[in-house]
Amino acid sequence: MPITPYLLTEEPYYQPVDSEIAVYESAYRLRLPLMLKGPTGCGKTRFVEHMAWRLKRPLITLACNEDTTAADLVGRYLLGPDGTFWQDGPLTLAVRHGAICYLDEVVEMRQDSMVVIHPLTDTRRLLPLDKKGEAVNAHPAFQLVVSYNPDYQSTSKDLKQSTRQRFCSLDFDYPRAEHEAMIVAHESGAALALCEQLVDIAACSRALRGRGLDEGMSTRMLIHAARLIGDGQPVRLACRVALSLPLTDDPDMLEALDGFVEAHFG
Amino acid sequence: MPITPYLLTEEPYYQPVDSEIAVYESAYRLRLPLMLKGPTGCGKTRFVEHMAWRLKRPLITLACNEDTTAADLVGRYLLGPDGTFWQDGPLTLAVRHGAICYLDEVVEMRQDSMVVIHPLTDTRRLLPLDKKGEAVNAHPAFQLVVSYNPDYQSTSKDLKQSTRQRFCSLDFDYPRAEHEAMIVAHESGAALALCEQLVDIAACSRALRGRGLDEGMSTRMLIHAARLIGDGQPVRLACRVALSLPLTDDPDMLEALDGFVEAHFG
Amino acid sequence: MPITPYLLTEEPYYQPVDSEIAVYESAYRLRLPLMLKGPTGCGKTRFVEHMAWRLKRPLITLACNEDTTAADLVGRYLLGPDGTFWQDGPLTLAVRHGAICYLDEVVEMRQDSMVVIHPLTDTRRLLPLDKKGEAVNAHPAFQLVVSYNPDYQSTSKDLKQSTRQRFCSLDFDYPRAEHEAMIVAHESGAALALCEQLVDIAACSRALRGRGLDEGMSTRMLIHAARLIGDGQPVRLACRVALSLPLTDDPDMLEALDGFVEAHFG
Amino acid sequence: MPITPYLLTEEPYYQPVDSEIAVYESAYRLRLPLMLKGPTGCGKTRFVEHMAWRLKRPLITLACNEDTTAADLVGRYLLGPDGTFWQDGPLTLAVRHGAICYLDEVVEMRQDSMVVIHPLTDTRRLLPLDKKGEAVNAHPAFQLVVSYNPDYQSTSKDLKQSTRQRFCSLDFDYPRAEHEAMIVAHESGAALALCEQLVDIAACSRALRGRGLDEGMSTRMLIHAARLIGDGQPVRLACRVALSLPLTDDPDMLEALDGFVEAHFG
Amino acid sequence: MPITPYLLTEEPYYQPVDSEIAVYESAYRLRLPLMLKGPTGCGKTRFVEHMAWRLKRPLITLACNEDTTAADLVGRYLLGPDGTFWQDGPLTLAVRHGAICYLDEVVEMRQDSMVVIHPLTDTRRLLPLDKKGEAVNAHPAFQLVVSYNPDYQSTSKDLKQSTRQRFCSLDFDYPRAEHEAMIVAHESGAALALCEQLVDIAACSRALRGRGLDEGMSTRMLIHAARLIGDGQPVRLACRVALSLPLTDDPDMLEALDGFVEAHFG
Amino acid sequence: MPITPYLLTEEPYYQPVDSEIAVYESAYRLRLPLMLKGPTGCGKTRFVEHMAWRLKRPLITLACNEDTTAADLVGRYLLGPDGTFWQDGPLTLAVRHGAICYLDEVVEMRQDSMVVIHPLTDTRRLLPLDKKGEAVNAHPAFQLVVSYNPDYQSTSKDLKQSTRQRFCSLDFDYPRAEHEAMIVAHESGAALALCEQLVDIAACSRALRGRGLDEGMSTRMLIHAARLIGDGQPVRLACRVALSLPLTDDPDMLEALDGFVEAHFG
Repeated sequence: MPITPYLLTEEPYYQPVDSEIAVYESAYRLRLPLMLKGPTGCGKTRFVEHMAWRLKRPLITLACNEDTTAADLVGRYLLGPDGTFWQDGPLTLAVRHGAICYLDEVVEMRQDSMVVIHPLTDTRRLLPLDKKGEAVNAHPAFQLVVSYNPDYQSTSKDLKQSTRQRFCSLDFDYPRAEHEAMIVAHESGAALALCEQLVDIAACSRALRGRGLDEGMSTRMLIHAARLIGDGQPVRLACRVALSLPLTDDPDMLEALDGFVEAHFG
Repeated sequence: MPITPYLLTEEPYYQPVDSEIAVYESAYRLRLPLMLKGPTGCGKTRFVEHMAWRLKRPLITLACNEDTTAADLVGRYLLGPDGTFWQDGPLTLAVRHGAICYLDEVVEMRQDSMVVIHPLTDTRRLLPLDKKGEAVNAHPAFQLVVSYNPDYQSTSKDLKQSTRQRFCSLDFDYPRAEHEAMIVAHESGAALALCEQLVDIAACSRALRGRGLDEGMSTRMLIHAARLIGDGQPVRLACRVALSLPLTDDPDMLEALDGFVEAHFG
Repeated sequence: MPITPYLLTEEPYYQPVDSEIAVYESAYRLRLPLMLKGPTGCGKTRFVEHMAWRLKRPLITLACNEDTTAADLVGRYLLGPDGTFWQDGPLTLAVRHGAICYLDEVVEMRQDSMVVIHPLTDTRRLLPLDKKGEAVNAHPAFQLVVSYNPDYQSTSKDLKQSTRQRFCSLDFDYPRAEHEAMIVAHESGAALALCEQLVDIAACSRALRGRGLDEGMSTRMLIHAARLIGDGQPVRLACRVALSLPLTDDPDMLEALDGFVEAHFG
Repeated sequence: MPITPYLLTEEPYYQPVDSEIAVYESAYRLRLPLMLKGPTGCGKTRFVEHMAWRLKRPLITLACNEDTTAADLVGRYLLGPDGTFWQDGPLTLAVRHGAICYLDEVVEMRQDSMVVIHPLTDTRRLLPLDKKGEAVNAHPAFQLVVSYNPDYQSTSKDLKQSTRQRFCSLDFDYPRAEHEAMIVAHESGAALALCEQLVDIAACSRALRGRGLDEGMSTRMLIHAARLIGDGQPVRLACRVALSLPLTDDPDMLEALDGFVEAHFG
Repeated sequence: MPITPYLLTEEPYYQPVDSEIAVYESAYRLRLPLMLKGPTGCGKTRFVEHMAWRLKRPLITLACNEDTTAADLVGRYLLGPDGTFWQDGPLTLAVRHGAICYLDEVVEMRQDSMVVIHPLTDTRRLLPLDKKGEAVNAHPAFQLVVSYNPDYQSTSKDLKQSTRQRFCSLDFDYPRAEHEAMIVAHESGAALALCEQLVDIAACSRALRGRGLDEGMSTRMLIHAARLIGDGQPVRLACRVALSLPLTDDPDMLEALDGFVEAHFG
Repeated sequence: MPITPYLLTEEPYYQPVDSEIAVYESAYRLRLPLMLKGPTGCGKTRFVEHMAWRLKRPLITLACNEDTTAADLVGRYLLGPDGTFWQDGPLTLAVRHGAICYLDEVVEMRQDSMVVIHPLTDTRRLLPLDKKGEAVNAHPAFQLVVSYNPDYQSTSKDLKQSTRQRFCSLDFDYPRAEHEAMIVAHESGAALALCEQLVDIAACSRALRGRGLDEGMSTRMLIHAARLIGDGQPVRLACRVALSLPLTDDPDMLEALDGFVEAHFG
């Protein structure tokens, strides 16, 4: 089957925060489309991977950008030796074969192109391929999941109400400190004590969101720092390389971030 | 016949509000083009589906977006093994074979592309395919129906008077409370008493339209909530997942919405 | 002959207002290009149809929009089994075979594309197909007619003087009340007394142009209302469906329009 | 020869104003590129036609617009049965075969595309076809002539100095009253006395340039009026149709123009 | 060899001003890319032609404009009977075969497309053809030369520092009066005394740069005037046609320029 | 192997400043993506070349610009004799075959296109070719490196946090004076004393950054000056040609820069 490669064979590590696994399972049983909200790097993508593995469904992911068109979702005509032929896009592939289709950073996409998903997300569960003159009935196992970061939303880049109201929604945040330290330790192989200090530094940086920083340090960045330290780099250099410099170019903010590191490891 | 798949075989559930069925039937007898106005999720699409079923006509729907061009309506040349061939668009298909053509969210479309429907909507009932050099006389059973949400209209996105004046119009609103509770109960299988409380919550949210919310909760969202509750999710969690979080990202508004839920189920 | 289908076989009903028929005939004898000005739905298109029928010339109409390019007028290369071939556009077809070419809402079109008509509208009567490397001498019977609504004109959308000055011009307005009532009665089959009341209502709405309404009710809308009434709909409902709702989305204006109806039929 | 059809077989009527014929002949002997300036409809195109006839050179005219690209001047690749083939544009045709190439309303064209003419207008007299990888040496008889209306020029639409300085220039204005009346009489067949009155009316309108009118009446409009009168239309109606209405949509200005007519024919 | 036609067979006349020939020869020996700055028509193009002749290298010139893309420099795929084939652009041709590539008016080009030249202008001397998947090592004789007019530069049209710093640079100005008169006499065949007066007039116009004129008269315009006079045109008429009218459309400036002529030849 | 030509065969000269070589080696061992920040011409590209040589990995470089699309990174369909075929872009080539992929001036690129690298830069190490319907697992040796100049960043051109946080980062600056003089001497073959004076002049110019100059003189420019002097050009002329004129067009700034030269060599 063409979507077999999209089956996850190993369990993606996921540390539950609340009842999000039960809610997802319920939404999947009812085939309700789902919308995940939360800051950069807080674990939304990992959660969807984990659920796809848990539900034993293939997962087809599309990272959306401003150039993502309806054709990138549903497919397009290509030119072959016998003239044009149709090639299904990732959404159509998922619809036909019953995968979970995950549209990451969906607000980046042109929201007007989003209307192609409307007939998929109501009782019709139908994907009209207007250019092909075909309407595909969704496979019973198909589900649509989208995600975005509500902090980035401006009025010009927002999901339209007629789109939003078709989804149920879950909100995510960075994991609690003790959870986050365990995640960093698990992913980097570093000692828990070191990871707790890194999580402390991240908390300081997250307090500066909207006060000089667009975002605080993500869990991923803490893992990077822990791995560099594990590879033998000095702690303060590793923190500058993995935490401060990637976060900002502003000299004052860099100094503040280096100060947090200093305070913990100085 | 190529449009047989567009015939609705089961009656779509529709709860009449007023004399809208009689007016639609009269407009169809006179073959007057129809324009439906009303907020997101109030039942415009369902009404057209119901009427198409009632009149036993195929229904061809096109969800319009900013990229919808005249070619997406009327068709285009594609490249085959023997050079280009013409493929009818959904509007041309409906015009040739006597379907009802429904353009959903028509103001999203470039209004200048809308002029292609002009000769279809006066006594000529003619669709000129300029690129093909053909003019198609409409099948006697053909009718054009469009819809939009007048609350979204800005001056830059508005139907031109020369287009508007070609249509008769019906306006829709959310159903009355007792009707809406019956609809939610019918579609979700939940108890009427629960549905009445959900409809009450929706009324609270609709009172905030234009005062922090772009839209109130749609009937569809109430059905989602009722289904999640029926699947065993706690009432307040189901309401947050299906009602509050999809409606807004604003923390204050989220708190207000959760408060409405608290007041009804707390 | 490829333009035979464009011959009008039945006389289009037209109620003359002034000496416009004599002026058109004179302009046609002299093969002067003609520009018709007037508000939406006042009868410009019907007049051209009537004149084409009267002069026994085929009529090729193109409803212009912002995407109308010079290629949409003159033609383009398409890809066939033996490579590209040229397909004449509607203007070229009219020029080659001696039809009247009518460009409706010509100011919508990019005015810079309009320069393709310049050599057609002076003593050269020549259409250069630059992309094809051919220059077509106009058939002796060819004439060019354009129309627009001067109330819509903004500085960004205006015919250039170098284009305007190539045309003679006729201005149109809504027909006088007694004429308009006769037209509505003729087209709808309704009683003249009813039609006179509808024309009165339209006059009230036209007085609000520029004071809350972009346009007043067109003759076409009055015909719609009269036909719905003739089909058995209540008068006030028919007026709301055919007159008020299509004209505006503004609640205050809707109330005012419904008030006019009330005053006449209440 | 492919440009034979561009030879003018009949003398275009031209009434010289000054020494412009001698200057043109000198510029042509020296093969200097020429730039003609002047208001709409004052006779620039007719002058070039007259000179091409006088010099017995074919004349290839291109009316420029905002979409005119370098490819429209020099040519492009088209797709044929054996793949792409090159088709010369009008400029290349003139360059290869020694025609006069006349670019009408040259400021409308994207001025950056104009740089393709630079190597043609200095001592190199060379047209590089960059896309084809060929450089065409101009035929000894080739000359380039451009025209524009300096009153329309805005800063965004202006010939660049590096382009302008490659041309010699002649400026044109409307002909003197006695000349203009003779031209109108010659072209319309009307009596000189009538034509003198029309020229008087035009003078009144030209005095309003920049004071409510973008342009005054052109000689061409006077000829239209004289022809309509000759065809039997009443004088005041003919003047409204051919002079006032084409010139402006402004009610106050229309009244002023009709007043001029009244004063002369009232 | 495909670039043989680009060899200059006759010495282009060039009057040296300073040590620019020695500097160019040194830059060429070291294969440093060169950037020439100076006003319109001051002799930059002629200088490069002269140097290419002197160094016996073919010269490939590209006049840049806003539409100049990286593909216009490096080449593109075209469609032939056996599918697409690659055609080298002028820069690639020069890079492969060791020509001097001269990009005239380089700031007109989209500066972001300029990054294709970066690897050519450092020690790599490499042209990556990204679309073709080939990287061409420059022929040892290849050199890149660009030119622009610094007076035209706005902040939106400027070479990026990361581009500029790859070039050595020479600045040019109009030649000194005695040199310029000799150049005009040499190119037009006119008497030196007349040419000296024309150079005087040009000096007056150049003093108005930035005070009503964008540029002063170029040497090329003086040659035009001298040639028209040599062809028998009256001096003042020749100066108006070749000097004043091409330079400006402003009536006050035209009067000032005619006044300079009057003062010298009146 | 198709990427063999991308192997560097000679050691690129690089003068280490700090522990950047150790950090890079650690990041490469951990396959962490790397982001290099620093001003124009300070040695970022040379450092990556040096590391690729040191690690014996092929280096595929793409200089980004505003037109760089996702297709330019990952590849596109081309048309061949048997219809369309896929051609890998430079990123895909590196991903498949284990090269280091270096995206130079990455902020120039449309940041929304950057999301294609997201799945490559987390634990998935996967490059989805959405248009092709293929997902390429990265070769174990693959690494992604990007660079940009933080001084150029505006809000409209900035890496998104969701992109930035995927990278570890190193910041670069111009080398210390004694190092820079050694580099200039090594690359130009000039005497160290001369190079020290050139480095002094560069320091003066760098002090003017943001005070009239966008950038100071780069090391590359000093090498140019030293080479021109070595080729026999007078010192002050060489400095004007290689240092002052390329840096700015502003007359006051040019005078200031020439003054620095005067002060050192006068």
